[in-house]
Amino acid sequence: VSVRVAIQGERGAFSHQAALALVGPDAAVVFTPSFDALFEALAGGAAERALVPIENSLHGSIHENYDRLKQGAAHVVGEHVLPVRQCLIVRPGTGLADVGRVASHPVALAQCRRFFATHPGIEAVVAADTAGSVRLLMAGELPADAAIASALAAREYGASVLQAGVEDDPRSFTRFLLLAREPLVESGADKTSLVLTLPDRPGALHRALGVFASRGIDLSKIESRPLPGRPFEYAFYLDVIGDPRGACGEALAELRGLASELRVLGSYRAAREQPPGPAA
Amino acid sequence: VSVRVAIQGERGAFSHQAALALVGPDAAVVFTPSFDALFEALAGGAAERALVPIENSLHGSIHENYDRLKQGAAHVVGEHVLPVRQCLIVRPGTGLADVGRVASHPVALAQCRRFFATHPGIEAVVAADTAGSVRLLMAGELPADAAIASALAAREYGASVLQAGVEDDPRSFTRFLLLAREPLVESGADKTSLVLTLPDRPGALHRALGVFASRGIDLSKIESRPLPGRPFEYAFYLDVIGDPRGACGEALAELRGLASELRVLGSYRAAREQPPGPAA
Repeated sequence: VSVRVAIQGERGAFSHQAALALVGPDAAVVFTPSFDALFEALAGGAAERALVPIENSLHGSIHENYDRLKQGAAHVVGEHVLPVRQCLIVRPGTGLADVGRVASHPVALAQCRRFFATHPGIEAVVAADTAGSVRLLMAGELPADAAIASALAAREYGASVLQAGVEDDPRSFTRFLLLAREPLVESGADKTSLVLTLPDRPGALHRALGVFASRGIDLSKIESRPLPGRPFEYAFYLDVIGDPRGACGEALAELRGLASELRVLGSYRAAREQPPGPAA
Repeated sequence: VSVRVAIQGERGAFSHQAALALVGPDAAVVFTPSFDALFEALAGGAAERALVPIENSLHGSIHENYDRLKQGAAHVVGEHVLPVRQCLIVRPGTGLADVGRVASHPVALAQCRRFFATHPGIEAVVAADTAGSVRLLMAGELPADAAIASALAAREYGASVLQAGVEDDPRSFTRFLLLAREPLVESGADKTSLVLTLPDRPGALHRALGVFASRGIDLSKIESRPLPGRPFEYAFYLDVIGDPRGACGEALAELRGLASELRVLGSYRAAREQPPGPAA
């Protein structure tokens, strides 16, 4: 029986592409309309796994998903780093000269400014999302001649990729976390994600990072999170590199003594395609 | 003569609201269609100041604007923290019972999920942006009966706020940076923003933060930035609290010796309404 993986978005979304890459082509993907619905699908048993975007190289960390993870109902068991390759997608037979209007989600359109600047005769039209634009295009219900979306969206709906890589920044990526209801530390886990709150004292972060530095342990991410409404509390996101049962586990135990609050979101095997991170 | 401030967006945008709050009601606001156009307006002399969003409490840091700042053509001279208060906006005389469709930018619609969940008879419709939806509503060109945007947008276009605070999270805010062509350190500057690259060595970050911890200096932000395509280099964003001419300046001088690269984006007076940050 194949594992059911919940994603936010519809058939052909970048999340769908990430799910196929991470879980394999036999993954039974459960499509949900919102992140809340995604977490509910996992908690309620409609799926055994869920895949959420957690950061993007242009738009930063997705705090709202960190917030949902902090609540503790889901555990990180894997990750995937997906290059965001936007494609200009048309009905089969349409050529570039036939394209007057291109529809997509505003964030995708904003990632393709150079394409529109170099094609001044082509107008950008806002749509609710990327893959959905391709679906509507093929159904004859899109007020445009083309859409911008993933190559997978073209494949899923029988459309054609007229031009691949129309995004301005070819190094753009989105990092996804794979979630399960229970913590599940695979052998080979070499990365741990945690959220941490420190007392409001100068030097508190320096002391906290000392537990890693003294053991030669690297971080692949550190980020402070403003907590509006809680003026004397501060949260940090950390990704720590190393086997959680070794020196890294000792460092986390020591860190518990320094932190006001510490939640391990999960330990998992780092993605092979990895955005580089900082040294601790 | 009033200072000209470039913003990204149109009349009534949240950036417009932030510009009026920061520079005063006499600010001559220059509206630009994209962040690239915004930076060009500043560099080319169409405006003396520019105001860019740099982070949002739900959606994280806006890396693309950090990237533009890193290029060094603009200097941070101020900041503003704007609570994001979304309003349901109608033509004067329209009541809630008359509202069947509500249009806005997809990000704004996503911030108001609870409103739509509790009003199942009301349909969300995607539009290119928030304030522009109000303009189209008043021009009779919006395929909806209401828009979601700032209260300022309602005022600018002569529309009515039917319900204020329709966003799910009332503590949501966006932080803006005020930019000038030249560095301009006001007396009273007590915050410095910098971007920093460290050598790939365990403990490098711990050592770097030591220059602040040893002087009792607080950080209000720290964030690591993956640098795809540059596998052994790492960037950090730091906001440091303190007079840049005092101990904070000494710490930065010491930090220059540890960093592969260090760019001071600017020193400025911290916003009074401040999202709390971490202790160094």
